[in-house]
Amino acid sequence: MRIAIINPNTTQSMTATIADAAHRAAATATEIVAVTSSMGPASIEGYYDEALAVPGLLLELTKAEREGADAAIVACFDDTGLDACRALASIPVLGICEAAVSTTSFIARRFTIVTTMERSRLPVADLVHRYGMAARCNVRAADIPVLSLEDPQSNARDRLRNEIDAALREDRAEAIVLGCAGMADLTAALRAEFGVPVVDGVAAAVKQAEALVALGLRTAKRGPYATPVGKPYRGALEIFAPQAILSA
Amino acid sequence: MRIAIINPNTTQSMTATIADAAHRAAATATEIVAVTSSMGPASIEGYYDEALAVPGLLLELTKAEREGADAAIVACFDDTGLDACRALASIPVLGICEAAVSTTSFIARRFTIVTTMERSRLPVADLVHRYGMAARCNVRAADIPVLSLEDPQSNARDRLRNEIDAALREDRAEAIVLGCAGMADLTAALRAEFGVPVVDGVAAAVKQAEALVALGLRTAKRGPYATPVGKPYRGALEIFAPQAILSA
Amino acid sequence: MRIAIINPNTTQSMTATIADAAHRAAATATEIVAVTSSMGPASIEGYYDEALAVPGLLLELTKAEREGADAAIVACFDDTGLDACRALASIPVLGICEAAVSTTSFIARRFTIVTTMERSRLPVADLVHRYGMAARCNVRAADIPVLSLEDPQSNARDRLRNEIDAALREDRAEAIVLGCAGMADLTAALRAEFGVPVVDGVAAAVKQAEALVALGLRTAKRGPYATPVGKPYRGALEIFAPQAILSA
Amino acid sequence: MRIAIINPNTTQSMTATIADAAHRAAATATEIVAVTSSMGPASIEGYYDEALAVPGLLLELTKAEREGADAAIVACFDDTGLDACRALASIPVLGICEAAVSTTSFIARRFTIVTTMERSRLPVADLVHRYGMAARCNVRAADIPVLSLEDPQSNARDRLRNEIDAALREDRAEAIVLGCAGMADLTAALRAEFGVPVVDGVAAAVKQAEALVALGLRTAKRGPYATPVGKPYRGALEIFAPQAILSA
Amino acid sequence: MRIAIINPNTTQSMTATIADAAHRAAATATEIVAVTSSMGPASIEGYYDEALAVPGLLLELTKAEREGADAAIVACFDDTGLDACRALASIPVLGICEAAVSTTSFIARRFTIVTTMERSRLPVADLVHRYGMAARCNVRAADIPVLSLEDPQSNARDRLRNEIDAALREDRAEAIVLGCAGMADLTAALRAEFGVPVVDGVAAAVKQAEALVALGLRTAKRGPYATPVGKPYRGALEIFAPQAILSA
Amino acid sequence: MRIAIINPNTTQSMTATIADAAHRAAATATEIVAVTSSMGPASIEGYYDEALAVPGLLLELTKAEREGADAAIVACFDDTGLDACRALASIPVLGICEAAVSTTSFIARRFTIVTTMERSRLPVADLVHRYGMAARCNVRAADIPVLSLEDPQSNARDRLRNEIDAALREDRAEAIVLGCAGMADLTAALRAEFGVPVVDGVAAAVKQAEALVALGLRTAKRGPYATPVGKPYRGALEIFAPQAILSA
Repeated sequence: MRIAIINPNTTQSMTATIADAAHRAAATATEIVAVTSSMGPASIEGYYDEALAVPGLLLELTKAEREGADAAIVACFDDTGLDACRALASIPVLGICEAAVSTTSFIARRFTIVTTMERSRLPVADLVHRYGMAARCNVRAADIPVLSLEDPQSNARDRLRNEIDAALREDRAEAIVLGCAGMADLTAALRAEFGVPVVDGVAAAVKQAEALVALGLRTAKRGPYATPVGKPYRGALEIFAPQAILSA
Repeated sequence: MRIAIINPNTTQSMTATIADAAHRAAATATEIVAVTSSMGPASIEGYYDEALAVPGLLLELTKAEREGADAAIVACFDDTGLDACRALASIPVLGICEAAVSTTSFIARRFTIVTTMERSRLPVADLVHRYGMAARCNVRAADIPVLSLEDPQSNARDRLRNEIDAALREDRAEAIVLGCAGMADLTAALRAEFGVPVVDGVAAAVKQAEALVALGLRTAKRGPYATPVGKPYRGALEIFAPQAILSA
Repeated sequence: MRIAIINPNTTQSMTATIADAAHRAAATATEIVAVTSSMGPASIEGYYDEALAVPGLLLELTKAEREGADAAIVACFDDTGLDACRALASIPVLGICEAAVSTTSFIARRFTIVTTMERSRLPVADLVHRYGMAARCNVRAADIPVLSLEDPQSNARDRLRNEIDAALREDRAEAIVLGCAGMADLTAALRAEFGVPVVDGVAAAVKQAEALVALGLRTAKRGPYATPVGKPYRGALEIFAPQAILSA
Repeated sequence: MRIAIINPNTTQSMTATIADAAHRAAATATEIVAVTSSMGPASIEGYYDEALAVPGLLLELTKAEREGADAAIVACFDDTGLDACRALASIPVLGICEAAVSTTSFIARRFTIVTTMERSRLPVADLVHRYGMAARCNVRAADIPVLSLEDPQSNARDRLRNEIDAALREDRAEAIVLGCAGMADLTAALRAEFGVPVVDGVAAAVKQAEALVALGLRTAKRGPYATPVGKPYRGALEIFAPQAILSA
Repeated sequence: MRIAIINPNTTQSMTATIADAAHRAAATATEIVAVTSSMGPASIEGYYDEALAVPGLLLELTKAEREGADAAIVACFDDTGLDACRALASIPVLGICEAAVSTTSFIARRFTIVTTMERSRLPVADLVHRYGMAARCNVRAADIPVLSLEDPQSNARDRLRNEIDAALREDRAEAIVLGCAGMADLTAALRAEFGVPVVDGVAAAVKQAEALVALGLRTAKRGPYATPVGKPYRGALEIFAPQAILSA
Repeated sequence: MRIAIINPNTTQSMTATIADAAHRAAATATEIVAVTSSMGPASIEGYYDEALAVPGLLLELTKAEREGADAAIVACFDDTGLDACRALASIPVLGICEAAVSTTSFIARRFTIVTTMERSRLPVADLVHRYGMAARCNVRAADIPVLSLEDPQSNARDRLRNEIDAALREDRAEAIVLGCAGMADLTAALRAEFGVPVVDGVAAAVKQAEALVALGLRTAKRGPYATPVGKPYRGALEIFAPQAILSA
């Protein structure tokens, strides 16, 4: 099967990190196709970047479906544009936050997500609430810019470690979820260092995507994920008119 | 004071309906500036249209702030893009769903929103939950296309009346909220017909916007509504880079 | 329009503070009539005072409606007797807690109310829960007697400041709500000192009352706010029999 | 031990019904003292009557404590003035709604309260929510005036039976709670007729009061139930000043 | 009346402590029969012990009912096997956690349970949530083995005291619930030491059992507590086949 | 990898149905070992059967782990004994209800579980609540005995179809979850008949087990799933003493 994993920001180096984690998690028979959005923000830090990342994400999603993907993953921990993706695509689409949270719920009663920027903390907490895990999962921010994770000179990884340590002590977290796609390469090292389960959303989403495809399950189209109604779209976004993008 | 009311779909006739409702609600000293998004869907019917309406909405918002608006209103009942708007703008921004729901909470214990398309029912119910009113407010859909409200040949208004009738009987609703900006012109007639309070979100949002401006209140910038961080934006959305759009 | 603002305690100097705040917030065309309850406690500090403040409040409310008020405000942060007021009056009635909480929800995701006595903290938290904002709004008490706010010799204002400071640091509050009508005169100074939005319920309620009147909205009478049924009332409260008070 | 059971409305015939139910439930060694409020409404039907019943209730409560009661019961299903009672008294005070709901929770997973007037349905549902049983307990109204229960000519008892029948079928209720003190005499007949547990709040409260006294438990005074602070009370309610009423 | 109190662990010395507390709480006319499970764990510390305590508990329960008990109490604070007991027995069955939590809810708005092992903290918190008291009741663990409470050499009682002290300061608890049947003998001393209401679940459950019997209430059999369906049981548990155990 | 799937009832024909579903869902490289409990009820219908199924389940679980299983599945939709299993085993353990609910949450916003006996409806609803999906997932019972699913003469499958039909119409379910392991063979036929996603918990749990093993995740042992403390176990359950069962 083929799984498209879409980095909704436009930074290719982050796509490489994501692709590595996805390959490590994928079954032998799974083909991973990792793509970078061609339009929008270089990183997603808060509501504004999130909103502007969606058009590029939707373009990559339809392209991936057209080219034969069996499932798609949105590789940003804010689960950016996930509802719109599910309405547009006929293949199943997964967010890395929802995949990580569900997976962790099977191995721990209380756990903590450690994300990057403080301004992303409440949006991620809103997701956790929506996924029904607010009573079991705290959200912390290490207060680091997303792209600093790639900069060996920054103290980003130390701040991340400090926040994990606080989660274990203060939240009595039994497991840790890494709250940014850009942290995917740190999973093994952090497990070794802290001796608790550490869950990366990219890897979790790959397994959930494989599961949905193997089970023959696709997004239900009876409710809010019904295929968009054809209608005129104006201006620079004309190409997104449902009849246009779906037949492209 | 000047209040910008932005129709995030690209249908100018709907903007006219909205502008009329806004003028009727506004205080004498309030200047209403009603604008239509120049890019995106002709109507917002579900998650996909909603996501693609946001870029055009954000452009109009920054333009409105630059031209001196003291507050802005997003005139779509899905409160489309509201969080991104609040992060981007320094003036306060209101959604018509949140304004309607808050206003109605002061005059009724249980009330019902009647929206248009079935596919918008759960998204609006999610908003109601987020605004803390899930236990007090049911959401119904009359199952009518948004633009059919403007078509005198359609049976849209009859279906809307039927659904209000069901809300009064089955939900024991004490008041009705009209769940689409395109219904704003029906408020007075429906109040007269059903003899209960009927609340239109456009009018409610105008009063809330006037209130915030009069009270000197602006969006708090300490949390998730912090001004977007400057960074590169690529491709067709390059003009949305925070440093570009904020200094335009 | 005319808005009656009723201080449900019997301390006239507090009514003066409230009236000042109301006048500052009111539109030019709004007439503010501030009245003091003629029977009951000198200040409302906990459930007992609250219950005994209601008869006097109801008397002032009917008097205000009879004298032409278009809306009324209960100027105690416990929203004392609000449900009984809504059942009795045909004009809309607002509480200052509900008005402050709704208004603040439009400009901040997380905020904190700072009230006076520790014994009022849980009652106010119950209100916040009822208004659907428990997940977004913490309640703190500065542990000061209500009337000490009027005493320049007391350290009440310093304790209030300390509690606001704690809310900003520990709750990560994005905005502050002043949890007592007697704090209304401190709003501007506290905004300047802390640099965050500070919301006073008296001012917020004036704007909400203006909004309801302008929108032509009155309390829905189909449910629990139905007009009281006529029946005998005995003893010292005989004058409160619905048929008596409503026709007085 | 001595338990005071206070009818907060002023109708003595209802007190007699309540006293009978209390005597049947009480242990041999328990002395029941049933009293009728001397001021306020003849029946409690909605928020307005409820508020005006509180002063008379508080007078009877202090009198009962002064005369040696070990516990007190507020015999109205709206749990009228319960918080104020707990603050005022040093003996434990119980509401009949809370006692009925707790007791029923030990013998059924889902149950339904059938109350009198439609306007009391939401207030009782608010109590159920506050007592943590909203997910397990529905509230229905038979839509009958409170005092019609005493009128053999009325169809009140038939309407009550119809509503119980609907609860068993539609709510899949496993047990029924009688939602008005005036229904206390119907318990045995309704159990026999419907073959399910039927719980009367008056009887339940007597057993809870006996339990608290036997266990040596009194209202905690560290939080919102702290004894009222001494202060001036003005006008017709002067006698309620805490220092006055507590030393009377 | 006769109340069976079943210690679901197999440690007889703990049954003695429980029996003493039950006798102290019982009315003169109540006969307390305290029994120890004859099979399973010596103490219940976490989910595993809890599950294995149930068969022995069910045996004692049927034996007690057969021998004329009017009600039964499960004397472990995890309310071990309570649902299965209610389905099996026709007499009412009470858990000591639910009894303690309900009783305390009548005398305090916020209270704290102090239990033994950290691994029991979340299971007890789940009970509190199920009983509808999550917003009012925190759960703490003193991190002590259950049987250490019986060992005068251990520091168990000091750790318990420290945790109560923390609950009063940090949780602002107004009352304390002792979260282990083995703490029942400490109630009076802790009340005296801390000056707040201290509630023991064994005593509370005795009073609730007396109440249910006096009120003539038995477990409702229309829903999930319906009597088990007869069917084959295999292997070592053959004797638990419903038709066998119920007719034994 | 090897996945043990344990049927916690003692009916081997049902194990065969479960094993078939598991094999169909498993990856090529996955070895499925399906086992039947050797002690306890022939079917699990309500709380009592559920409790008595746990000892046999725990025996099979330790045996499976000892024989090299990498993960285990409890194949009863009540997620019988899941917490005890997680405490006992070091390999990850999954319930089929939790797996089905999580999987379905990725493809539908609102869905319905159709289970067998009415008496299992509330227990399954409690699981759904615990898994955070109460607002999105209704539970219905077809009111059929578990083993009737295997009897071609019974009308069990027709009743199941009727209930699915009701779920689609009345609940507006977008997808259906089969609420009993014994329904696993019906998945494909029901998908074809109703044209909506139909999810079987056995298949879903196999994929979740494969995912956890592939991701290297095991149950967190810092909290309530800590390995049971060694202690004496008495009587017929002596072999379950943690030190005995873990070293067997």
